[in-house]
Amino acid sequence: MSDQKPSIAVLGGTGDLGGGLARQWAKAGYTVIIGSRSAEKGIAAADALKSEFPDADISGGDLVETSTKADIVAVTVPYAHHGATLEQIKEAVQGKIVIDTTVPLRPPKVGRVQLPAAGSAGKEAQELLGENVRVVSAFQNVAAHHLQSDHEVDCDVLVAGDNVDARETVIGLAAAAGMKAWHAGPIDNAAAAEALTSILIQINKREKAHSGIRITLGK
Amino acid sequence: MSDQKPSIAVLGGTGDLGGGLARQWAKAGYTVIIGSRSAEKGIAAADALKSEFPDADISGGDLVETSTKADIVAVTVPYAHHGATLEQIKEAVQGKIVIDTTVPLRPPKVGRVQLPAAGSAGKEAQELLGENVRVVSAFQNVAAHHLQSDHEVDCDVLVAGDNVDARETVIGLAAAAGMKAWHAGPIDNAAAAEALTSILIQINKREKAHSGIRITLGK
Repeated sequence: MSDQKPSIAVLGGTGDLGGGLARQWAKAGYTVIIGSRSAEKGIAAADALKSEFPDADISGGDLVETSTKADIVAVTVPYAHHGATLEQIKEAVQGKIVIDTTVPLRPPKVGRVQLPAAGSAGKEAQELLGENVRVVSAFQNVAAHHLQSDHEVDCDVLVAGDNVDARETVIGLAAAAGMKAWHAGPIDNAAAAEALTSILIQINKREKAHSGIRITLGK
Repeated sequence: MSDQKPSIAVLGGTGDLGGGLARQWAKAGYTVIIGSRSAEKGIAAADALKSEFPDADISGGDLVETSTKADIVAVTVPYAHHGATLEQIKEAVQGKIVIDTTVPLRPPKVGRVQLPAAGSAGKEAQELLGENVRVVSAFQNVAAHHLQSDHEVDCDVLVAGDNVDARETVIGLAAAAGMKAWHAGPIDNAAAAEALTSILIQINKREKAHSGIRITLGK
């Protein structure tokens, strides 16, 4: 990683949340590489984003190719593909920061908290990828809706990970995408943000909203 | 329960959070009964609160006695006493609403999420007390500090429980104590608010704050 802004691969960047993050980071001047299980779909999503930001450095490809190229890799795939995606990119991401946005929702009961045995999807990722990868869990509570527009994102980001510097990097990336982020402690604490998403789903249903959270300091 | 406001036993009402809730509910005109493992300590805490609110109906006693008398029972004991307290009051609370505020913190690592095998302390309470008790999990994220004063409480309350009417009752009790509360879904979802407390502890340490959360609707 040079003095330049790091390049970011967004795996699942063809989806709502990944597409929204890719959009915000491209807008902020980061090199964005959209990864998909299908290289063609990744390239198509990159071309679409490029048409909105013609001056940005945006490309696409398959999961391994994009993870290999990028300095930082964001995993934004559905939980059903989480383990398989991580297995595929395990070699390519050694030594890197992996941002895990996964929420372990289990359809159809997405409004019910059902955390995995490891405690969280973030913890599963850290265990699977090994200690040479700095897994940072973040962005689970942000409605993709907000990232596709240019209004203020009225939702804070909880950033959990065992490496403090890596958390700090992700807090900076959240700020670049228009969001206030907080150090939330070790990767075990990914459980809180992941569980909270089911509550926001409950609130969205009752209030017909795109709900989020804010941290208050109440000094 | 008549047309009158329900009476509320606050078990652990000698502690910071319980004392704060007892104070707010006494102020709002509810009959408050402070329960403690020691009847004498419960009575002493009641007398102290009575000196602040001389017109309020406030009494104290041991755990079983206060749980038997009250319409609604709030459990605000440390997690280390959670199971034993519930065993003691199990018979006394049959047919009632039990508000569980417990956070399953495991000292010394209180800033690390370590949820119990059942998924949450709230779920443990529901399983232990049985289906004839409506367990509602709430108030885990509120800094006791705020409840001891009369300034606005800058923290929302997430209310989880399998019975919607019981949740609605607790949302009303939160409002009476000056807090906005939200339907957070079934008792399994207590995991989110319980886990979040460790994150707020992390934030408090970094920011020297009494942090809390707000739900945003972002419509």
